[in-house]
Amino acid sequence: MSASPGIARTPEPPYYAVIFTARRTEGDHGYTAMAARMEALGATYPGFLGIESARGADGIGITVSYWRDEASIAAWKRDTEHERAQRGGRETWYADYQVRIAKVERAYGKP
Amino acid sequence: MSASPGIARTPEPPYYAVIFTARRTEGDHGYTAMAARMEALGATYPGFLGIESARGADGIGITVSYWRDEASIAAWKRDTEHERAQRGGRETWYADYQVRIAKVERAYGKP
Repeated sequence: MSASPGIARTPEPPYYAVIFTARRTEGDHGYTAMAARMEALGATYPGFLGIESARGADGIGITVSYWRDEASIAAWKRDTEHERAQRGGRETWYADYQVRIAKVERAYGKP
Repeated sequence: MSASPGIARTPEPPYYAVIFTARRTEGDHGYTAMAARMEALGATYPGFLGIESARGADGIGITVSYWRDEASIAAWKRDTEHERAQRGGRETWYADYQVRIAKVERAYGKP
């Protein structure tokens, strides 16, 4: 566990991670507002454990959200507003992306 | 799979991900050179599948490396030069970090 800003305080494994790596298109087109809204909305879902996000100057961003189980991930993916954002991602905001769903088996921090 | 710069071309799951989330200390202190060297060296290890990295202006960085199996991750962790870098990370470069080892079960990209 960690109390550092930007580093999620997750419980002992096992739990799930959704690793979202994306390359943005040019321009904002409402992206910043949508991303903030999705982060806030996702955090209200049962089973949400935390989120970490970084985007470099080269336009590559990585967001990892942590979840109790796969059912929690599936429920959030089906959220109506989130579905609309996913469509906007495919059509407008992301030139490319990859989503990976992974089961966290071990974790450790700075001693 | 993806051919996009910055997005790793990984095979069909299952495979492993090492999610490394860190908050840097102030100043470089040799960090940039070490990070480039570690990325190049890690890629020579058997079982290495790819790497994705992003660091925001807030100092939070996320690096996800992908590996065929846990044995590949363990072998890279024991590399002598990597062990020295890990010690430098604890002592100098990182104010805090979290390492999570996760088994990627599913993956999909932009249609």
